[in-house]
Amino acid sequence: MEDQRFGLSRRVTLPGPLRLDGGAMLAPVEIAYETYGTLAPDGGNAILICHALTGDQHVASFHPRTGKPGWWTRLVGPDKPIDPARDFVVCANVLGSCMGSSGPASIDPSTGQPYAMRFPVITVRDMVRAQAMLLDHLGVATLKAVVGGSMGGMQALSWPATFPDRVRACVVIASTARHTAQNIAFHEVGRQAIMADPKWRGGDYYGHDDPPAAGLSVARMAAHITYLSEAGLTEKFGRKLQAREAKGFGFDADFQVESYLRHQGLSFVDRFDANSYLYITRAMDYFDLAEEHGGLLANAFRRTDARFCLVSFDTDWLYPTIESRHIVHALNAAGRAATFVELSSPYGHDAFLLDAPEMNRVVDGFLKGGR
Amino acid sequence: MEDQRFGLSRRVTLPGPLRLDGGAMLAPVEIAYETYGTLAPDGGNAILICHALTGDQHVASFHPRTGKPGWWTRLVGPDKPIDPARDFVVCANVLGSCMGSSGPASIDPSTGQPYAMRFPVITVRDMVRAQAMLLDHLGVATLKAVVGGSMGGMQALSWPATFPDRVRACVVIASTARHTAQNIAFHEVGRQAIMADPKWRGGDYYGHDDPPAAGLSVARMAAHITYLSEAGLTEKFGRKLQAREAKGFGFDADFQVESYLRHQGLSFVDRFDANSYLYITRAMDYFDLAEEHGGLLANAFRRTDARFCLVSFDTDWLYPTIESRHIVHALNAAGRAATFVELSSPYGHDAFLLDAPEMNRVVDGFLKGGR
Repeated sequence: MEDQRFGLSRRVTLPGPLRLDGGAMLAPVEIAYETYGTLAPDGGNAILICHALTGDQHVASFHPRTGKPGWWTRLVGPDKPIDPARDFVVCANVLGSCMGSSGPASIDPSTGQPYAMRFPVITVRDMVRAQAMLLDHLGVATLKAVVGGSMGGMQALSWPATFPDRVRACVVIASTARHTAQNIAFHEVGRQAIMADPKWRGGDYYGHDDPPAAGLSVARMAAHITYLSEAGLTEKFGRKLQAREAKGFGFDADFQVESYLRHQGLSFVDRFDANSYLYITRAMDYFDLAEEHGGLLANAFRRTDARFCLVSFDTDWLYPTIESRHIVHALNAAGRAATFVELSSPYGHDAFLLDAPEMNRVVDGFLKGGR
Repeated sequence: MEDQRFGLSRRVTLPGPLRLDGGAMLAPVEIAYETYGTLAPDGGNAILICHALTGDQHVASFHPRTGKPGWWTRLVGPDKPIDPARDFVVCANVLGSCMGSSGPASIDPSTGQPYAMRFPVITVRDMVRAQAMLLDHLGVATLKAVVGGSMGGMQALSWPATFPDRVRACVVIASTARHTAQNIAFHEVGRQAIMADPKWRGGDYYGHDDPPAAGLSVARMAAHITYLSEAGLTEKFGRKLQAREAKGFGFDADFQVESYLRHQGLSFVDRFDANSYLYITRAMDYFDLAEEHGGLLANAFRRTDARFCLVSFDTDWLYPTIESRHIVHALNAAGRAATFVELSSPYGHDAFLLDAPEMNRVVDGFLKGGR
């Protein structure tokens, strides 16, 4: 029972091939995932959780490398809106990532070497297709719900659009149906920071035990600013100085916000692969659900009967409320059932990962309202 | 007369020493500057223009390196609110910069080598003190007005606070009285990007003809995003692709906004020194006019009789309108005459450099309303 409580960490090699949006065929397709709870005999209790850009499959169990608790234990766990005592919870590392699923650090069977930049460029829809292959493997025909925040919300949106008959409910938190020019711009800064690091070596750094940590760290710092609100940063740090009492008149981290950001950058490189960062940001930048459906977002939702729940946060300037409204308008136009709430939080985009009792109530009520 | 029309580009070596906020003594103090027009016999027509982070003294005349017109010809020139036919216009390259004034690329007289990171850390107030030394040299006792946008606005604000009797009017556009945590965070990303570039060599790159262009370029890209509004980026680029019709499924610049940003980064390194970028961003991060005056911003304005004009732009999220409001409240508390207008523009922070007829009208009216 201990195993069940902390999730079953597994990895499956699916034969593939998986035809990707870019045209390439990927085989084999390795997927690392965790499950919590037990699939009901009628298969009706499966919930897929989709993770964000730098997330992982350890949604409600300790991360094996960092030892930290799962990233969404506030939402998934005993007596939580998603409860393994009732639900069969699946969370898979996305395609292109570096926590066990196929990505640029995986071995290319045609060469016996890591793919590096020879890994094919993927899309959010490709991630979803790989998840569907995993569900086939697990014997899950239809999802009770697919749930995700940020890039996880993009996958959640893409699910009913790609597999209209396989999902009954869709929860999209702090997300968007397409990346804006500003979203792309921030990601491009991160990619250029990585590629500018000579240790990146065109992506072929795996054999050198000396990854492009400096570039990846800068990329993470730039991205991290977009995850926080200006007000949240001011509340948490303001212009507070480090331990010293007066300004140092040098270039060490003088302000607390500087050392915080540096720490965010440095700790990130211990747990993430730079090439995966390139591939996943690219997939997010390519994401435009309307474009995939003839330029009209409503078209993405015409073939499904799924119910939708949208949640945004008022201080999220990465994927602001207006983006959720666009989705709701399209759902309305397509005649779909849609719940939408904008929640108040000082924490910006990151709010979906933090203590948000209102979010829990919304998700709980929405999931219980299902068939 | 041609010379007058296009400004007189000059450089002066002031003996100093200049005592800096950080405690160091700087000598000599070299200041590169331009003047337009003629100082009136009573000395009453001098206007000092202060430039922004990466700006220069060529406010209304062609840049000698890029060949581009002056950066504020919309505001300064014949029949403009600041007109050399009436006003004696002075614009100096700020201390710490790289267009001829003393900065990290200057020769340290004690070693005969460039200062590099041995240049003392400076503040906005130090920039203002150096400008005052230049005005002494030019025989300007009192300024009719000091005018600046962005970091130029910080200098403009610092002028009456530092030299209360030497300035009669102060125009502060798209600026702030202190850098917020988010402002500092973005600058720290830029500094880390530069310092992560191995070609930075701890700042001692001047002898190698191979500056840290990649790091400086990333720094500029990150900063550039903060100069534009999300709406402006969407209007200009949206998700438009480059010349090719379909996504490239690679890591070349696929979206127009990517190649635009890359161009911004690459063209910047031709005209700016990486160490100067470190020093000037540091000065901006240190800027907190209230802190310099006992923690109360109003105190900064109690000893001057200057009139103030504040202009903000509604889509400027770098120095949003609320920052100008803080300044106006402090001016009110100090009993100073203050005009404040928030202008509407789609262009974000950059609006102050672009065509803004309303801004011109506000500045024109304010300057004409003076004694």
